[in-house]
Amino acid sequence: MTNISIVTIGDELLIGQVIDTNSAWMAQELNKAGFWVRRRVAIGDGRDDILNILREESADADIILMTGGLGPTADDITKAVLCEYFNSNLVVNEEALENVKNIFTKILRRPIIESNLKQAEVPAACQVIQNKRGTAPGMLFEKNKKIYISMPGVPHEMKGMMTDDVIPFLKNRFVSDYISHRTLLTAGIGESSLADHISKFESGLPAHIKLAYLPGYGMVRLRLTANAAQADSLERELDLSFANLKLLVKEWLVTDEDITLQEALGKLLTYRKQTISTAESCTGGYVAHLITSIPGSSAYFHGSVIAYDNEMKKKMLSVDPALLSAHGAVSEETVKAMVIGAIRQMKTDFAVATSGIMGPGGGSEEKPVGTVWIAVGDAHEIITRKLWFRFDRQRNIELTAINVLNLLRIFILSRPLQSRLKDLGN
Amino acid sequence: MTNISIVTIGDELLIGQVIDTNSAWMAQELNKAGFWVRRRVAIGDGRDDILNILREESADADIILMTGGLGPTADDITKAVLCEYFNSNLVVNEEALENVKNIFTKILRRPIIESNLKQAEVPAACQVIQNKRGTAPGMLFEKNKKIYISMPGVPHEMKGMMTDDVIPFLKNRFVSDYISHRTLLTAGIGESSLADHISKFESGLPAHIKLAYLPGYGMVRLRLTANAAQADSLERELDLSFANLKLLVKEWLVTDEDITLQEALGKLLTYRKQTISTAESCTGGYVAHLITSIPGSSAYFHGSVIAYDNEMKKKMLSVDPALLSAHGAVSEETVKAMVIGAIRQMKTDFAVATSGIMGPGGGSEEKPVGTVWIAVGDAHEIITRKLWFRFDRQRNIELTAINVLNLLRIFILSRPLQSRLKDLGN
Repeated sequence: MTNISIVTIGDELLIGQVIDTNSAWMAQELNKAGFWVRRRVAIGDGRDDILNILREESADADIILMTGGLGPTADDITKAVLCEYFNSNLVVNEEALENVKNIFTKILRRPIIESNLKQAEVPAACQVIQNKRGTAPGMLFEKNKKIYISMPGVPHEMKGMMTDDVIPFLKNRFVSDYISHRTLLTAGIGESSLADHISKFESGLPAHIKLAYLPGYGMVRLRLTANAAQADSLERELDLSFANLKLLVKEWLVTDEDITLQEALGKLLTYRKQTISTAESCTGGYVAHLITSIPGSSAYFHGSVIAYDNEMKKKMLSVDPALLSAHGAVSEETVKAMVIGAIRQMKTDFAVATSGIMGPGGGSEEKPVGTVWIAVGDAHEIITRKLWFRFDRQRNIELTAINVLNLLRIFILSRPLQSRLKDLGN
Repeated sequence: MTNISIVTIGDELLIGQVIDTNSAWMAQELNKAGFWVRRRVAIGDGRDDILNILREESADADIILMTGGLGPTADDITKAVLCEYFNSNLVVNEEALENVKNIFTKILRRPIIESNLKQAEVPAACQVIQNKRGTAPGMLFEKNKKIYISMPGVPHEMKGMMTDDVIPFLKNRFVSDYISHRTLLTAGIGESSLADHISKFESGLPAHIKLAYLPGYGMVRLRLTANAAQADSLERELDLSFANLKLLVKEWLVTDEDITLQEALGKLLTYRKQTISTAESCTGGYVAHLITSIPGSSAYFHGSVIAYDNEMKKKMLSVDPALLSAHGAVSEETVKAMVIGAIRQMKTDFAVATSGIMGPGGGSEEKPVGTVWIAVGDAHEIITRKLWFRFDRQRNIELTAINVLNLLRIFILSRPLQSRLKDLGN
């Protein structure tokens, strides 16, 4: 199989100031194209580090994809080191120079400075990959039958280059395997219980189909991966295993596609032509953000009231002040009243509400940090859950959001939808 | 200097289904403790991959920290491979077994299954690091004077183990360098212009102080890093360089601490004892989420109206329907009206508003995808900006949020605050 190493360059990765999202995206796209990423390595902006990794990775990989270290500033030394490794020297690439000038005169409308012009210099030994989204060109090298490609670290520039040039080049040049995945998402069951529940299924899988558990935020994703030299019967075989797996986990199944909970919810609402709104206290807009991160969500999402302050709960969601003083903001009664207020004010079929103590401060003996009430409902019925988390603020917010979106999904599925209900499937 | 390699294990990292946030956090903490991470590597759940990386990394690194591959499921093979590498065999660790039993009987209140009990098995050659937050114990090995530590991949379990056990052990065992950072955040100037502006400063820095540019979301973070065997005069020297740098970039300075824009805004509002609210259309709650991700934000954040639907803009923010039909939702007039509505409805000192077309659909010739209007203001004045982005939906949302929060910060600083104004500093 054709092997790829992904190398990301930059001191910021080694001191942890930046989280590397590029290489995950690259791995995903390469995988879809039938290439196997054998290793992802992050190194610093040091000459020796770069030279060493090029030597080491090229011993086992067929292709080395690099990102980062191509900026206009002095700490970006990748190009100089590539010249050294490929025994080459910097020359101006006219097309890249034209591109830099265009970006400054037509798009940024700022004067060009010396360091910007230097971005058009590339090692003479490389084949240039033009950057349609930024100033730093990509560079493709070949040495001892290995391919080396250097791309800028700016995510949308790298992504454009990968999609438009790098992946088409690799598919044309190398034999790619046939790799296929099936992924489903479960909620409400832990990884080990799930593994126990499907252990017979797992041990009965043929050798070329692998099962992986991907736990995250109260949900577990299960992935079947098959690979072979030819497609042939592989897809059918994978479909069969996947159908069996779905049946085994149907009690906890959120979706049988490789999508997020919020995408699954969006599909459900689009299909049912129904609408939602959110009334958020402790999640502070995060539930609305998850919903609106999906393109087309304006078709089913009307809006939200983020009622951080109790006055907001009274005024914007008509929560009874007497109820608030009797039970407090973090209570079953309050989240119920918030759902009622949201449905009335925002005129949606369904609404969700959250109220809790996310920490680190604000807890009491009766209601410690991590205490959360959530509610979902429509004009006829409201259901609630009390949650208790032990994590940090960010994680508590994320887990609350996931829980309330999943509770909403289950609630929606439980509600009749006139004549269309029988078509709904799961 | 003591060198560390971080190795993360799991096929999910190589097919890109998971973004590795663990190693960035680890690098940050190790750096604070004076250790240098030389390399971060992600590999798959394969026997050979794990054995090879242990051999390769131990050639140059003093310490190899591993995470992942310790789950209760069949795809997690790290322990078996560690037995092979260290020529050892699995034995039950009584304390770890007690811990697993406790977690199931006292916290999860679920029956223990066979695979959970197996989590208490460890290679006989290791020293166990007890896991106070989960079932998989950590393992410490020594071979040819190199230290190998294997930790679970679940972030809060790994973090607890690092803080409580691993870092104290390393500090005790190895000589750590003295490393110190100073970081500031700028907005409104590109990386290359900034580099040009401070090029003399950069070239005048002593050899043991390095300057790094960390661009992200319309902002550039500048970091000075110094390292030496002793602290001595290093801190003073670094302070002096940092003071010079701050002076040079003062026009674009957001904060001279290593904090986010939303944290800087929170500090400003807390100091001024003033309050904010948001009226969001295209950002869909993301601005509110950024604000409320900061502990203690309830002191200055009242709430938000997420008015995705135009009816919401009219009803909850009193935007004049005639204005909406005359100018459309994505217009200067609408965001101004949203700010006025937010301040009146939510009774805050300041408010921000966003309205735009985030894509991929919804654009027109007059207002293409990426067109955004933002506004910030108080009861006396409102300022607006038109933005135009060319990116994907997620990035457009994030950039809009960052722009509106920074505009708010600048607006707040421009407003007099009675007697306290002169103490404000920057």
